[in-house]
Amino acid sequence: MNKKIKQALTATLFLLFCGSLYSQKNNTMIRISEIKIDSNYLGEYKAILQEESRASVKSEPGVICIYPMYEKEDPTEVRILEIYESREAYEQHLKTPHFQKYKTSTLKMVTSLKLVDMEAIDPETMYAIFRKQQE
Amino acid sequence: MNKKIKQALTATLFLLFCGSLYSQKNNTMIRISEIKIDSNYLGEYKAILQEESRASVKSEPGVICIYPMYEKEDPTEVRILEIYESREAYEQHLKTPHFQKYKTSTLKMVTSLKLVDMEAIDPETMYAIFRKQQE
Repeated sequence: MNKKIKQALTATLFLLFCGSLYSQKNNTMIRISEIKIDSNYLGEYKAILQEESRASVKSEPGVICIYPMYEKEDPTEVRILEIYESREAYEQHLKTPHFQKYKTSTLKMVTSLKLVDMEAIDPETMYAIFRKQQE
Repeated sequence: MNKKIKQALTATLFLLFCGSLYSQKNNTMIRISEIKIDSNYLGEYKAILQEESRASVKSEPGVICIYPMYEKEDPTEVRILEIYESREAYEQHLKTPHFQKYKTSTLKMVTSLKLVDMEAIDPETMYAIFRKQQE
């Protein structure tokens, strides 16, 4: 094979490899879930969500962050910052027993649910914030 | 001093000490900033915010998280998850040159700003998510 063709082929393969690494790194899924809870179930809902989010972060390598909060001024307004390493990690998460348990047992407690897909403004420094995010 | 009084005093001091440790741990300040940006300035705004958030996380020990995002469906809707170790850490942050630069240079770009104070549903496992949060 001609040397120049070889060099061009090597360069192309290298670029393809870099592109694949880049898209893997940028496959991260970020979401803010906005959830309104029936005030009659608030305590019960928070306990179930705490159990679920804790299990997800601890047992699923692809769950970078599931961080549930509620508004100080209105505790029925729950917000969850969710970050998954990839769409596959998210789909895997939906199948776990802890997520299934959360979903079925809180159905009647949720009065509204909005899943807002987000983009990070600075993906490069996520590792400085999130423990499971690699540099 | 009567032995029983001594024991009661020791127990009281111990409880006060634990209470102080607890309130230190629970002094964490959590906020979601909801910011609407004039679309004419979007690129410029995101660059300034990226510089500011990066500098805050890297140089301020009390900044556990400043994580800026925008909505995929409407990039002019910016959300920032902010977590400070304490109110003092937050007040210190407001005085930094990088925050001051961000604040003054983006004033004309922001069409609305809502600072929503939040509570964590599971403060105990924050360390498993955030790199700078101690166990």
